[in-house]
Amino acid sequence: MPRYKITMEYLGTGLVGWQRQKEGLSIQGFLSDAIFKLFNEEVVVQGAGRTDAGVHALGQVAHFDTKKWYHAETVNNALEFYLRESPISMLSTEEVTEAFHARFSATKRHYIYRILNRVAPPRIKQGRVWHMPYELDVPLMHETAQNFIGEHDFTSFRAKACQAKSPIKTLERLDVIKNGEEVEFHVSARSFLHHQVRNFVGTLKMVGTGRWQKEQVPEALKAKDRTMAGPTAPAEGLYFVKIEY
Amino acid sequence: MPRYKITMEYLGTGLVGWQRQKEGLSIQGFLSDAIFKLFNEEVVVQGAGRTDAGVHALGQVAHFDTKKWYHAETVNNALEFYLRESPISMLSTEEVTEAFHARFSATKRHYIYRILNRVAPPRIKQGRVWHMPYELDVPLMHETAQNFIGEHDFTSFRAKACQAKSPIKTLERLDVIKNGEEVEFHVSARSFLHHQVRNFVGTLKMVGTGRWQKEQVPEALKAKDRTMAGPTAPAEGLYFVKIEY
Repeated sequence: MPRYKITMEYLGTGLVGWQRQKEGLSIQGFLSDAIFKLFNEEVVVQGAGRTDAGVHALGQVAHFDTKKWYHAETVNNALEFYLRESPISMLSTEEVTEAFHARFSATKRHYIYRILNRVAPPRIKQGRVWHMPYELDVPLMHETAQNFIGEHDFTSFRAKACQAKSPIKTLERLDVIKNGEEVEFHVSARSFLHHQVRNFVGTLKMVGTGRWQKEQVPEALKAKDRTMAGPTAPAEGLYFVKIEY
Repeated sequence: MPRYKITMEYLGTGLVGWQRQKEGLSIQGFLSDAIFKLFNEEVVVQGAGRTDAGVHALGQVAHFDTKKWYHAETVNNALEFYLRESPISMLSTEEVTEAFHARFSATKRHYIYRILNRVAPPRIKQGRVWHMPYELDVPLMHETAQNFIGEHDFTSFRAKACQAKSPIKTLERLDVIKNGEEVEFHVSARSFLHHQVRNFVGTLKMVGTGRWQKEQVPEALKAKDRTMAGPTAPAEGLYFVKIEY
């Protein structure tokens, strides 16, 4: 039974997110439909992570099993064709063994969050960045972000709907850097809680605009209380960049 | 009679271009409507350059005259508000004297053309780059581009519809550089012929893919014959970046 690993770019704008739902367009839905057209088989597409409505991917990974076999390149080209009107672009397809699991085999996940930090709202990048017209102290945000590095109970940065068994995660990287008109958050860990990156960004933004003292951030972390951390940053600035296996 | 200089970003996707036409959405049309809402005056908005359908701007400049006077900041904020559902974002507004003319006072114009050079089609950047799945020899394209620098008769790179009095222009810069998955063309001159940048890009692409020998490019320039140069690159990769005065 062949197993295929696929890597995709997608624009999350207007979608209900990764997961197929009763109503609305989803990445899983587009993929299942395209795979059905090629293989004439109903498959469950397992993603490395579920992205929320409006969240984008530069390198989301998924796997699926089929009964029929085609060469990986044929699968990639055919899916690309069937997805040509969709928000998904096929970056690559490989045949893998049953030992590979898109979600459970992942050893590291990388996200980027993009803020457009200028007064004028975005047009070229509309829906692709969080627009923030207030001045941000980027070095201070970066410095404060280092409180999150290492193993912590991230309850304060966890969505209510989070299904993870434990709130304890190990954050490997959270760099906040200025890149022209943008402020970028580069975030890496083996795995994340639901909304963890967006809650980091929403909290660090409070420090960057000066509304919070930097000391409030480690306090919020220690509190293990979602109401002590900052708001959830909007989905449109978040990109699932890469998964390592 | 106040004269305002405005600087704008816009996404050209789906528009008929800068100029108001009988049918379709135009930048001039959006601007005139917004200015009418604020001043209750019908004005002609004069742009630094007319962008074609699908061409974007990161810093297009225009001016217009009104009878009523408001502070430049008020004008900027009000236009931003009236343009909030449009593809235009107001970067700045200044009050200028009658000596200023958006088109005729310009001393230098800067364009960027963006190619996404990878096999998979764009999703995040869809409509914002020219997708080119073939390998490009970027250093060779840059080297060949230097033939265009200086004063030349650019008839071979001029659209039939071009209304310029003379085909002689002085090109100041044409750098072709690799930037991650993208190939960028940075092009500067006091003024340009219609389609000149897109015809440069379409011609240099022929060299970059190896279909043309690099010697064909100076020959095409010397020929003063549009049919001797390469095809016109698509509008979606072109950005009017900045105008100097």
